[in-house]
Amino acid sequence: MSRSPTLGPNAYLIGVPGGRHTLDTPALLLDRTALTRNIAKMAAIAERHGIGLRPHVKSHKSVRIAQMQIEAGALGVSCATLGEAEAMVEAGIPGVLVTSPVVSTNKLRRLVALADKAGPHQLTVVVDDPRNVAELALHAARLADPLDVIIDYHAGYHRTGVIDEAAALTLASAIAETGMLTLRGVQAYGGHLQHIEARAQREDAAAQLRESVASLVDKLKSAGLPIDIVTGVGTGTHEADASAGVFTEMQPGSYVFMDVEYHHVLAGGESGAPFDTSLFVQSTVVSTQAPEWVTLDAGTKSFAADSVAPVVARGVQGPSRYAFFGDEHGKLVVDSAHRPSLGAHVEFVTPHCDPTVNLYDRYHVVDGDTLVDIWPIEARGRL
Amino acid sequence: MSRSPTLGPNAYLIGVPGGRHTLDTPALLLDRTALTRNIAKMAAIAERHGIGLRPHVKSHKSVRIAQMQIEAGALGVSCATLGEAEAMVEAGIPGVLVTSPVVSTNKLRRLVALADKAGPHQLTVVVDDPRNVAELALHAARLADPLDVIIDYHAGYHRTGVIDEAAALTLASAIAETGMLTLRGVQAYGGHLQHIEARAQREDAAAQLRESVASLVDKLKSAGLPIDIVTGVGTGTHEADASAGVFTEMQPGSYVFMDVEYHHVLAGGESGAPFDTSLFVQSTVVSTQAPEWVTLDAGTKSFAADSVAPVVARGVQGPSRYAFFGDEHGKLVVDSAHRPSLGAHVEFVTPHCDPTVNLYDRYHVVDGDTLVDIWPIEARGRL
Repeated sequence: MSRSPTLGPNAYLIGVPGGRHTLDTPALLLDRTALTRNIAKMAAIAERHGIGLRPHVKSHKSVRIAQMQIEAGALGVSCATLGEAEAMVEAGIPGVLVTSPVVSTNKLRRLVALADKAGPHQLTVVVDDPRNVAELALHAARLADPLDVIIDYHAGYHRTGVIDEAAALTLASAIAETGMLTLRGVQAYGGHLQHIEARAQREDAAAQLRESVASLVDKLKSAGLPIDIVTGVGTGTHEADASAGVFTEMQPGSYVFMDVEYHHVLAGGESGAPFDTSLFVQSTVVSTQAPEWVTLDAGTKSFAADSVAPVVARGVQGPSRYAFFGDEHGKLVVDSAHRPSLGAHVEFVTPHCDPTVNLYDRYHVVDGDTLVDIWPIEARGRL
Repeated sequence: MSRSPTLGPNAYLIGVPGGRHTLDTPALLLDRTALTRNIAKMAAIAERHGIGLRPHVKSHKSVRIAQMQIEAGALGVSCATLGEAEAMVEAGIPGVLVTSPVVSTNKLRRLVALADKAGPHQLTVVVDDPRNVAELALHAARLADPLDVIIDYHAGYHRTGVIDEAAALTLASAIAETGMLTLRGVQAYGGHLQHIEARAQREDAAAQLRESVASLVDKLKSAGLPIDIVTGVGTGTHEADASAGVFTEMQPGSYVFMDVEYHHVLAGGESGAPFDTSLFVQSTVVSTQAPEWVTLDAGTKSFAADSVAPVVARGVQGPSRYAFFGDEHGKLVVDSAHRPSLGAHVEFVTPHCDPTVNLYDRYHVVDGDTLVDIWPIEARGRL
């Protein structure tokens, strides 16, 4: 019963030989070697093409991984929520960009307090509405220096972002008029492009987006506006976008982990799949009453249910197929000749990695058969 | 920046008039009146039919709600995971039943330590395999009293549970032989029956299950086995099962909240929908760039994505339709004449309540327009 509230019931296995195979499950596993390699590879891609890298925290929500990304050369990190940004600034991570508009009085108050804590030019937020700009400026008045902002552009996704060049110019004027905000650039994140499976189609769509972004940047620059930062680009389009010279920064997130979907998306590129799977969910066989399947202790509370099914990585010989079996269980249909036994551990490549990580409180960091560390997922649930 | 790590950024609004409408979102809301009424109603149903009630913690994962259920007359609580059971025993909740087999050496060690902490007959676990029985008995040898166990029966769902009466009898013998375990009864939980929308079809299926359970119980009793407890029954079948005299206990969970699906399932019963929605997710409009929709700050990290879409409860006039818009955002398609404004708060009845609750660290307990308390979700993520 000696449970560390932060490290969980597997803490006693850190450093124990073979500890990876006797974990209490379901457990989120992170392969340290693959993670380190992925971080280095994306950093090298950015360096080779002379483009900045501000990786997205929404995928990993971890201070330790953010630190590794900074050490590998990232300019800072991108955050989807104010809670993520707070977790990063509290841990001393520099160069935080909040990639969604922050709306409502108390959140703006939190944002400005965070900017104060982070220091000059260490916190930037996107805006897409003059009313938000006006309210943000009211709060920013308490800062010693103006707050850095970036105009969010719809990027064809239309989730957030101004709808056209005229609206961007109007917003830029509104920003300038406040005197409390400094315009730094433009964001155009094509979230809908990242998962297009056909490479040619995805690259065409990314090229079209770049064309409209280049036109927008030209218009803003012609109006005398300082557009130093053009940010966007996810894991799915980084190959084409890194070298094209329109974006000055990339904000990919999932490349550190590689889930089932991104393996399909990135397979077959010039360098093959350029990243390795580092993220797994380990599960245990808890019931073996049927010849053709086993029941596992991982269901919709252990795997994101918004995309594809998890895929076995280790622990089963022969073909297998996972299906959700309620919230706490999974059904693994197997070749009956290779049915895993009661108590066997099965590891899966995760479906959609971001919402899967968001279900767990900690990473079990592994190196081969060894559990080498347990890292908290500080920003989990910080919405 | 004064954030309470346990109560979150809205703690300052407790007791402030109108505080419900200025919450930082996404926030999980719990209507205290509806919750209290639901708990009382199910307790009254159980009392009226002379059947025991051991409500399922997997839905709410909260010590406070478990305490309210016990105070209303519940025999104890049911738990899907060992982590949930630990959270309940640590808080002094009596009569804990673990409804899934506990497998693997370290978890069995944790289970037995928990039984020791809970005291005699305060912790019971289901079993479905003689190998699990043998390993459990080895660990239970350290207890002063034998550990109570219940035979898990497949119930037509075949997630866990012995496959037939012969297997149940074999398992009962194995339990008796150990000398370390006390057989208390049978579990037959028809998880697949709970969401059948057509009432007649659902009741037929529940009746069929009861018939096979009655036959199993007869066989076990005829063999001289003590079957005091026959547990099962979820929110979807409780109306028919409570009065039928086969089950001695019910283990419903979702009735405390009522999600979108259970509203369809229970609508049109003798007493109309017998339970009220008590659980909501509150979200904020963060972008209004399109005439026919708005973007909200709640996506797949705020709503379970395994079932139906969330449905607006408050904050929008006229028809509306929610669609996921990535992990942190939702797209709310609305009648353009009634488009909510930037910063407006919109509340939703949740899709599948159990995995939705599992995304949050706390309930914002509301009474009308007032935030009256914030309760931690102690067993969230405790798998």
